[in-house]
Amino acid sequence: MNFASDNAYGAAPEILDAIVAANEGAVASYGDDPFTNRLKTRMATLFERDVAVFPVITGTAANVLALSTLCPPHGAVVCHAAAHIMVDECGGVEFFTHGAQLVPIPGEHGKLTPVAIERALKRFRKGDAHSVQPAVISITEATEAGTIYTLKEIADIASLARAHGLKLHIDGARFANALAHLGCSPAEAIWGVDALSFGATKNGALGAEAVIFFDPTDARDFEYRRMKGGHLLSKMRFVSAQLLAYTENGRWLAWAARANSLAQRLAQGLAAVADAEIVHPVEANAIFARLPDRTIAQLRAKGAHFYDWGTSENGRTLARFVTSFATPEADIERFLDLMRGK
Amino acid sequence: MNFASDNAYGAAPEILDAIVAANEGAVASYGDDPFTNRLKTRMATLFERDVAVFPVITGTAANVLALSTLCPPHGAVVCHAAAHIMVDECGGVEFFTHGAQLVPIPGEHGKLTPVAIERALKRFRKGDAHSVQPAVISITEATEAGTIYTLKEIADIASLARAHGLKLHIDGARFANALAHLGCSPAEAIWGVDALSFGATKNGALGAEAVIFFDPTDARDFEYRRMKGGHLLSKMRFVSAQLLAYTENGRWLAWAARANSLAQRLAQGLAAVADAEIVHPVEANAIFARLPDRTIAQLRAKGAHFYDWGTSENGRTLARFVTSFATPEADIERFLDLMRGK
Amino acid sequence: MNFASDNAYGAAPEILDAIVAANEGAVASYGDDPFTNRLKTRMATLFERDVAVFPVITGTAANVLALSTLCPPHGAVVCHAAAHIMVDECGGVEFFTHGAQLVPIPGEHGKLTPVAIERALKRFRKGDAHSVQPAVISITEATEAGTIYTLKEIADIASLARAHGLKLHIDGARFANALAHLGCSPAEAIWGVDALSFGATKNGALGAEAVIFFDPTDARDFEYRRMKGGHLLSKMRFVSAQLLAYTENGRWLAWAARANSLAQRLAQGLAAVADAEIVHPVEANAIFARLPDRTIAQLRAKGAHFYDWGTSENGRTLARFVTSFATPEADIERFLDLMRGK
Amino acid sequence: MNFASDNAYGAAPEILDAIVAANEGAVASYGDDPFTNRLKTRMATLFERDVAVFPVITGTAANVLALSTLCPPHGAVVCHAAAHIMVDECGGVEFFTHGAQLVPIPGEHGKLTPVAIERALKRFRKGDAHSVQPAVISITEATEAGTIYTLKEIADIASLARAHGLKLHIDGARFANALAHLGCSPAEAIWGVDALSFGATKNGALGAEAVIFFDPTDARDFEYRRMKGGHLLSKMRFVSAQLLAYTENGRWLAWAARANSLAQRLAQGLAAVADAEIVHPVEANAIFARLPDRTIAQLRAKGAHFYDWGTSENGRTLARFVTSFATPEADIERFLDLMRGK
Repeated sequence: MNFASDNAYGAAPEILDAIVAANEGAVASYGDDPFTNRLKTRMATLFERDVAVFPVITGTAANVLALSTLCPPHGAVVCHAAAHIMVDECGGVEFFTHGAQLVPIPGEHGKLTPVAIERALKRFRKGDAHSVQPAVISITEATEAGTIYTLKEIADIASLARAHGLKLHIDGARFANALAHLGCSPAEAIWGVDALSFGATKNGALGAEAVIFFDPTDARDFEYRRMKGGHLLSKMRFVSAQLLAYTENGRWLAWAARANSLAQRLAQGLAAVADAEIVHPVEANAIFARLPDRTIAQLRAKGAHFYDWGTSENGRTLARFVTSFATPEADIERFLDLMRGK
Repeated sequence: MNFASDNAYGAAPEILDAIVAANEGAVASYGDDPFTNRLKTRMATLFERDVAVFPVITGTAANVLALSTLCPPHGAVVCHAAAHIMVDECGGVEFFTHGAQLVPIPGEHGKLTPVAIERALKRFRKGDAHSVQPAVISITEATEAGTIYTLKEIADIASLARAHGLKLHIDGARFANALAHLGCSPAEAIWGVDALSFGATKNGALGAEAVIFFDPTDARDFEYRRMKGGHLLSKMRFVSAQLLAYTENGRWLAWAARANSLAQRLAQGLAAVADAEIVHPVEANAIFARLPDRTIAQLRAKGAHFYDWGTSENGRTLARFVTSFATPEADIERFLDLMRGK
Repeated sequence: MNFASDNAYGAAPEILDAIVAANEGAVASYGDDPFTNRLKTRMATLFERDVAVFPVITGTAANVLALSTLCPPHGAVVCHAAAHIMVDECGGVEFFTHGAQLVPIPGEHGKLTPVAIERALKRFRKGDAHSVQPAVISITEATEAGTIYTLKEIADIASLARAHGLKLHIDGARFANALAHLGCSPAEAIWGVDALSFGATKNGALGAEAVIFFDPTDARDFEYRRMKGGHLLSKMRFVSAQLLAYTENGRWLAWAARANSLAQRLAQGLAAVADAEIVHPVEANAIFARLPDRTIAQLRAKGAHFYDWGTSENGRTLARFVTSFATPEADIERFLDLMRGK
Repeated sequence: MNFASDNAYGAAPEILDAIVAANEGAVASYGDDPFTNRLKTRMATLFERDVAVFPVITGTAANVLALSTLCPPHGAVVCHAAAHIMVDECGGVEFFTHGAQLVPIPGEHGKLTPVAIERALKRFRKGDAHSVQPAVISITEATEAGTIYTLKEIADIASLARAHGLKLHIDGARFANALAHLGCSPAEAIWGVDALSFGATKNGALGAEAVIFFDPTDARDFEYRRMKGGHLLSKMRFVSAQLLAYTENGRWLAWAARANSLAQRLAQGLAAVADAEIVHPVEANAIFARLPDRTIAQLRAKGAHFYDWGTSENGRTLARFVTSFATPEADIERFLDLMRGK
């Protein structure tokens, strides 16, 4: 029963098949291969516009390379206080941007709101060299809290970004989970967005992400940044092949839908247990539940893996449970049985 | 009537005299001169211990060089949300540390408290490579709010720093104002402190600051960082001579005491005016007063210079008034007359 | 006939099998998995000492992370003028070290000599803050010229490094090719070496390299640097599994030996052709031959892929031919037939 | 007898007078003062075009800020192998550019030639992300060897720069010495040049340099870089006042002419001594002479200060002698007497 992370599971068989299939013969290295070229067409089709696409191997690489392309060293990136770029990337954005500042903004259920962003922007003096200059808003879709911005919410933030001359970036480590929930097209989900960290690793890939710029002119220096960062893979075909297989026949959405639906099942089960308090709407593939410490200990003793999210208070601790494309359904049932004291 | 900044005034005559006196003859450049050597003895005497002393030309240089010496690229520097390093140095700390993160903590009257620091430290996972690792606490003495940490308050923060294995840095751009208020010795004021940005520019120097490490082994790489940052002056004697003249015969404390006392006079005058609300205790040389926008406009029309601190709310705006070693006493009286509608 | 790069071929079937085998079940992410743990034991056994091992995904990542761990921002890295870190990593070392300087040294057949290093070191003033301070010597084994340092040559450079207080790093993108040629044990090949970029990608892996420190205390900050650089893989098991399969049963050395022997075959064939001048001893898996431009054009017209190495001079151009673990033997014969005008 | 550096002497009395005169009253800080505004007009007049002017306090600051404005992180700066930015700034350019590469080019008498630059540029693959991309040529005028580029030589390099799409920067730490020698107008001396590090410190200022961009649009980000680097002075008026006094009434050229002429006198005296071999044409204020080690020891024993330039070979060592605006004429005569064994 591993609910620790959607990274705990390996790759989907279709992804492994695609890797094996891509192994045939000699091709040009460093991205000048047929797979990477096909990926560009694929993404342009998916997002219904001309795009610049750059495969990389980690979500952090995607985020830091995208943001350093959009934000100058004297800039600032507005994000949620709990964003991955803020709390889980060891200062990677500060490093790759050469000293830009992250502006952490609190917000209910992992979401930024236009009001909160407007308030945060006020403390920066535009054009005053003493002050870093806000350059990018970065939102996470699905959020770190397992919630999902609606299209209206993204559009409102996009309008605000445009009004302030800011770029809008999406950390889409769980973009598929968001799309599966929203039921909209990829193109609809990125209206007003400048760059997307398109994640696949958490949802069935072996290791594959892509930075996508929706205005290719924004990507000007990207190739140099990727190389300088050590993120240009020689055998790129294997990353591109994963992304092709991932986005083929709606697989990515089906896998994400499965993870989401397991999360729903788990959440419903938990909600029926008196002692569990679910703190965020469950919309993607994560559940945050405050449980008695005793229950948590028992669950772990029976072999359930999951993370505490903060420390114990008044005998209860917030715990995070993540489902994935590969989580066995039986694990959900077994876990709920444990919760019910069986 | 210039209350905009303590930088608005030039240098004290004694400082200019010292510069002229230091001009005699040829000496070694880059700090290997008699003035700089004498400065080391001077600071060791003042702080009653062995110290490493490095003159620089700006307060920002002092802060960023000191902090990048104490904090690794994967580290974090805890500071007040309104600290100069946070809001006025354009991401200098992030740049010089190569990507360390600043951790802004709110706090009444510009001060950090051990409780607030403890709370902030909790969100970093010690030893987890995903998380930046807190390495330094930086406090400002006197604070950006014109208040002054008591010796007890500093000692408590120093104890907390030691307990967590953190270094303690003081941004002492207005260190003389703090000392003049506290009435203690310099050595007492830095108990438990690892590094001090020792400011003189705001208090009568032409341009002179020093980074002081109270354990010289902490300073190991400093000379390279200063050079690499373009902050090693060839004619260093002129900076060192300023710092010598500044700390001679208690001048620095007398000048700061004058500025503090003018601030008291101004604050008392303002307090007697119905419409003025002073928002922080006036302990150093700055007054923060919420005034009717109409009053503010009238004061400016009559020639008073000062900064708004934020934007107008409900017809009132917070304004900052700073006094200095050289502010004419008559300006205070004239200003108060204006306030009284004369 | 692809002799462009050893990156042009995909992965060996044994590597793909290992990836598929590693896909089973849920494991901890970010390197806390059984595969990565086993890899540490494997490398300690191979190198006959306690080691710190960090899998990464590109050779550039391995180099820049290793070097930035060993070299401070005010340091310098001595390397061959044609080293990958000098001419092929887009300033990655300068970026990750935060501004250290590379010191390019010319040398016959891609090799540094103690005499050339000594000469280069002379121009740096030890302890003078104006001058970057040499901190690391980085050699490439096998070299960019397709030659291989003898154990004696490495030992001499190691002695020089020790005498000057410098660390010694090996860029081992083709380390297996060197070992296969030298016929010594891995432990013998790294005598006096502090860190190794252990390459597998060019020799049959899908994408797998490792940074190995032979004194684990040198690795202190490495995990933070890897994370901050975006180089910590969530599904690390797949990289570690590749490295395990690679080093199992002497596979890596057999694959490299095959590539080396194909290079010998190609070199011998070329040597028999009047017009070809081989400019470096062929010891690893690359041949550098100066050929008539006409011949080059004909070879390309017939479908041979390879790189020009510099520009045409007097009707001749230097060309590089690289063989790999997977180059078809028939391609060598067909290429030589073409050379012979058949 | 101090010939160690033109930094060994203090400031000219006119400079000190200007500082004292600038001390009057309160003015806006950080460069929004009448002196700094007047400086802009002064420089526009001197260089006969619209310029962007930024006073800073060290030559290294001027160089690293100018170059990081012109050269992206993935760029390269071509310079002479003995350039100050290459050997005396501790990797400052690499740090401020965030990892650009310096390309050291040897050249007789401290000068770059178009042929040598062309040759160096060849090894960079344009548009290939593996390779840093040359972005700037930086020449030093007067050079580190005490020689001076002719207007023709600069124009030829400028043409080459334009042809390759590169910017041209002059490190003008001794720009006045060059102008005094060339006898041309400042405007003539910067034909085809994009940015100038305009030095005054070595030639009579207390501490004052300026970065000048000849196309103000190039300066876009400069103010942020200067602040972020800790190089924005609060009491800027004192730097600007120095530069105003310096460039008033041709003082700077007169002072430089004096230094140059003392160097001529010294060189002629040395030339008459059998044992001295002058290795570079003496055009500015420095003489490089190879002298017997015995002579060098005797000169030092008699109180002469100067630097060895490299180490002893065959009983002789290259020594550098620098004259300045303030070197006493009598020192020249006394030194020559010593050389003549008197």
